[in-house]
Amino acid sequence: MTTKTDLLYEGKAKSVYETDNDDLVIVEFRDDMTAGDGARKETMTGKGYYNSIITSKIFEVLEAHGIKTQFVELTKPGTLVVKKLDMIPLEVIVRNIATGSLVRTFPFEDKTPLDPPIIQTDYKSDEFHDPAINDSISIALGLVTQDDLDFIRKTTMKINDIMRDMFLDAGITLVDFKIEFGKDKEGNIILGDEISPDSCRLWDVETQDMLDKELFRKGQDDKVIDAYEEVFNRLLNDDDKAKWNL
Amino acid sequence: MTTKTDLLYEGKAKSVYETDNDDLVIVEFRDDMTAGDGARKETMTGKGYYNSIITSKIFEVLEAHGIKTQFVELTKPGTLVVKKLDMIPLEVIVRNIATGSLVRTFPFEDKTPLDPPIIQTDYKSDEFHDPAINDSISIALGLVTQDDLDFIRKTTMKINDIMRDMFLDAGITLVDFKIEFGKDKEGNIILGDEISPDSCRLWDVETQDMLDKELFRKGQDDKVIDAYEEVFNRLLNDDDKAKWNL
Repeated sequence: MTTKTDLLYEGKAKSVYETDNDDLVIVEFRDDMTAGDGARKETMTGKGYYNSIITSKIFEVLEAHGIKTQFVELTKPGTLVVKKLDMIPLEVIVRNIATGSLVRTFPFEDKTPLDPPIIQTDYKSDEFHDPAINDSISIALGLVTQDDLDFIRKTTMKINDIMRDMFLDAGITLVDFKIEFGKDKEGNIILGDEISPDSCRLWDVETQDMLDKELFRKGQDDKVIDAYEEVFNRLLNDDDKAKWNL
Repeated sequence: MTTKTDLLYEGKAKSVYETDNDDLVIVEFRDDMTAGDGARKETMTGKGYYNSIITSKIFEVLEAHGIKTQFVELTKPGTLVVKKLDMIPLEVIVRNIATGSLVRTFPFEDKTPLDPPIIQTDYKSDEFHDPAINDSISIALGLVTQDDLDFIRKTTMKINDIMRDMFLDAGITLVDFKIEFGKDKEGNIILGDEISPDSCRLWDVETQDMLDKELFRKGQDDKVIDAYEEVFNRLLNDDDKAKWNL
């Protein structure tokens, strides 16, 4: 068993701890929810539970399709053991349907399907408020090489294909999502962080109801946890629930 | 002689007219100067004169180095005849030294040399306030293809090399600049618009004094025309002046 030691990093919704194993860290998914660059913050009881399990499930499916992820195990709901990575401070965003900031910033009609999908990168920085960044600037800042970016982009498109199918099987449209990568000590680029209704826009295929954090951004706080539970129930099968004692 | 007919387009600093030749338009460089997304507007007597001649000189040098440009002739100071292009609504920005919005948006130290240079693209749109745009979004909007972008990027790097040398010979550091491209009726991508102290950051090599529109942005309006005249005098030789009766 991996035992947590010092707090390494506290993010907006997760806390990361060192462990007794140099190669592993423990991630605790908290119930905190923030929006508007941290301007609004609430506690959403159950969010850490659902997001940790949904992330575990998605990372397992991605691994089964040959994508290297940080995931090692879900020790209990809310708590993951993951490989320690040196995180690349880029948010990689994939959009299958135009909505949100994309339609506010550029002349796309809301809900336009995007084929091929759009990929964007934001520079992850509280100080600079996560600005959009391009390849040229990312390289000049020393965050990545061109080869890193080519690998990240190719891997991201594969991840999108796998996740779109997975969500579609659950009656959910994967509208867009954000992922982050890191490097392990051998320098391999590996998918890290989380994939959950906090980091994806998810719409019910039939009703187009939102099943993600957008409900919180729009002030429909009372619907948030029901939506996360719905995603959890649709993605996880009985075997998953038995394996993780849910 | 090409004769102007209907006004085709009036920009912030230039007016474009149809002519009696379907393939050519006439561009008149006005003395208007704007800053802050059009918030401030002044008349700077002589600006149209200098910018039209500086643009003509730079476009001639680029043509001599194999870059296809829109330039046909300077009929008189202030007035250019140019090939009619279907302009691509992208501002292509090249930075040899980090300053301005780059150091406000990202953690670069002011005046850091950038080698290789940084290339950025902004979506040219008054309605959307010229947001930064990436390849993926430019393609999804139907503005360009990936091949177009590859050609634009390669050509832009060549233009930067030629212009850096040209300015250095005139004792001027080419800090950064913005260019625009268009397509002719055969679909060839051609350099268009202008290259002048309105669209470049130019510093005296010795004193690092600004010799460009940044003086206006910083409210040093009384220095603007002297700086533009200085760039004009350093770039143009006696043959240029004789040829254009200056």
